[in-house]
Amino acid sequence: MRRVPFWLWGVGGVGSTLLRLLAGESAGQRIRQRVGVEFVPVMLADSQGYLVEPAGLTPASVEQALAAKEGKGSIVNLPGARPATSASESLAGLRARMNLRGAIGVDATASDATAPALLDALEAGAGVVLSNKRPLTGPLAQFQALTRTRRLRHEATVGAGLPVISTLNGLLDSGDRITAIQGCFSGTLGYVCAALNRGESYSAAVLRAMEAGYAEPDPRDDLCGLDVARKALILSRLCGRALELSDLQVRPMIPARLDGLSKEEFLRRLPEADAEMADMVRQAAGRKQVLSYVADLSAPAPTGGLQSVDAAGPLGRLAGTDNIILFYTERYHDTPLSVQGPGAGRAVTASGILTDMITLAREELGHD
Amino acid sequence: MRRVPFWLWGVGGVGSTLLRLLAGESAGQRIRQRVGVEFVPVMLADSQGYLVEPAGLTPASVEQALAAKEGKGSIVNLPGARPATSASESLAGLRARMNLRGAIGVDATASDATAPALLDALEAGAGVVLSNKRPLTGPLAQFQALTRTRRLRHEATVGAGLPVISTLNGLLDSGDRITAIQGCFSGTLGYVCAALNRGESYSAAVLRAMEAGYAEPDPRDDLCGLDVARKALILSRLCGRALELSDLQVRPMIPARLDGLSKEEFLRRLPEADAEMADMVRQAAGRKQVLSYVADLSAPAPTGGLQSVDAAGPLGRLAGTDNIILFYTERYHDTPLSVQGPGAGRAVTASGILTDMITLAREELGHD
Repeated sequence: MRRVPFWLWGVGGVGSTLLRLLAGESAGQRIRQRVGVEFVPVMLADSQGYLVEPAGLTPASVEQALAAKEGKGSIVNLPGARPATSASESLAGLRARMNLRGAIGVDATASDATAPALLDALEAGAGVVLSNKRPLTGPLAQFQALTRTRRLRHEATVGAGLPVISTLNGLLDSGDRITAIQGCFSGTLGYVCAALNRGESYSAAVLRAMEAGYAEPDPRDDLCGLDVARKALILSRLCGRALELSDLQVRPMIPARLDGLSKEEFLRRLPEADAEMADMVRQAAGRKQVLSYVADLSAPAPTGGLQSVDAAGPLGRLAGTDNIILFYTERYHDTPLSVQGPGAGRAVTASGILTDMITLAREELGHD
Repeated sequence: MRRVPFWLWGVGGVGSTLLRLLAGESAGQRIRQRVGVEFVPVMLADSQGYLVEPAGLTPASVEQALAAKEGKGSIVNLPGARPATSASESLAGLRARMNLRGAIGVDATASDATAPALLDALEAGAGVVLSNKRPLTGPLAQFQALTRTRRLRHEATVGAGLPVISTLNGLLDSGDRITAIQGCFSGTLGYVCAALNRGESYSAAVLRAMEAGYAEPDPRDDLCGLDVARKALILSRLCGRALELSDLQVRPMIPARLDGLSKEEFLRRLPEADAEMADMVRQAAGRKQVLSYVADLSAPAPTGGLQSVDAAGPLGRLAGTDNIILFYTERYHDTPLSVQGPGAGRAVTASGILTDMITLAREELGHD
């Protein structure tokens, strides 16, 4: 059994699930048996502080941190914890105690500010795994600096655990040429569209998505399309396109008249948009089509927005909160290569992170 | 640029396409640039002989071999070629001339007899890539011996270039548990089913599949379901199930009354099955269902056979010669993780081989 140290920035839903998977009797055990690697947590950091132990944090210590985070507490209040308000600061604390070569840093935050620490970690010879999309959707130069080495991996940034990034990289590495990428990248927007197409009102659909826990606390964070734009930008940049987030033409799934309100006002006035949305659904249905929030990367500027698509086509048939990604290439031209399934959720996102950690460990350790 | 020597058993459609991709200006160039690896052919072998050059066969020499094979010639008749009627024999010729550690052997044959050579190559420290399903569908002990090391890879054995094996291994490695796998694994049978569902007769559909080049020269090689059974066996064994090919319950898509005839007799009497098949299609249509040749790995004994499935479901909607594989797991339970697309053809099969070669080279060479 080889021990691979890892550390975690962000002990929220995804980070906690990752720790539980690795500690668990079932999944953790299976990973150790199949992969022959034991991932050892050496640091857990949140936005206020970190716990560090180069020899590996004890299971009791990890459990304590998980319990604190579940109770909305902070790591900094735990015994032995140190204060740090940035990823760079906690990384400095870790580097002072151990050599990072061959270790793995996981960014499971939703922070804009981790990029410098990620670059430092790569520089120090560590692998880096992201579920956080933001470091890759900042300025293009930052994306290029981060992805210069294969030691940065980010499967979970698009479609959570679905093999999207690995499939795209596999096509590109093997010399295929991407001609178009299309898809539905948001479980929340998929859920709202499916409800609309079944005849529910826009206001009811949005409120139900919130109740079901699919939407962000402010549902406009999903409805505005920014999350879809980030995913589309990551895929476009992987294809070699020199784009900034502002180059993407993403239309919010919020009627213009409800723009710029407070959250409470927005939720109260949601029904004002019902008639307009119902009308779009009706018009689509007349053409045997349905509404879908589609990202399309084939245009000079990638687009995202509500579209009327064939009810019987791959995008129109999408169920519930599933994601779908269609790759059209030189080799897959008549019908695309497509990957589909649940594209959000803690377990599948943690699963995407784990797959990347395993690949990094294998490439680092080499063959028997 | 790092040079990775490789050799090829089987210079047929897939093997030739692989060589052309690697030699080509477009794909080969892109691979060298993106991956930083040059794959250098050191041996080409067919069933009668081989060309070998440890320093790398010249482009002219490779071109000569490709031209000979296209003209239905044999490698053994080329200048400098040596006779060998088994993979073990050509491998011995190669081993006498070079150390195989870090090199890659590709089995693109359809031979039953390559397994001993594959084991020898692994023993000698080489990587091995298969599009040939047969070595993995012989006795279970042989499968286990071959897959004991990650240096054997075989993405192209199921779904050609589609990320099927890598997705399954990723799920298993990350500690997920497979609860069921379902799918359509045969482009030929998919094509015939689609034609039947459109109202074409069985005889016309089979003949058209032959004309279009989808079916094997004797279409019964596809229709009997053996190819589907081999793929189902590989997936089942990867999931850890101790099965032999004979344990699978596969129903041929050939009416019993046409069993055991000569090929000519079979083709002449095809129309005798038309009424029976048309009846099945009609009965299915009455239930809003269609016919599909489905492999189901969830039962104690995996099954394959013609089924009536929901026309609007993932299996019923399958277009043309596409394959689909649905993974139901502990983490993907409500809706499955699915991979879909063209699952046969020279370019996509060669593409699957290439992806494996790149992974092997990366794991061998390690990180920067």
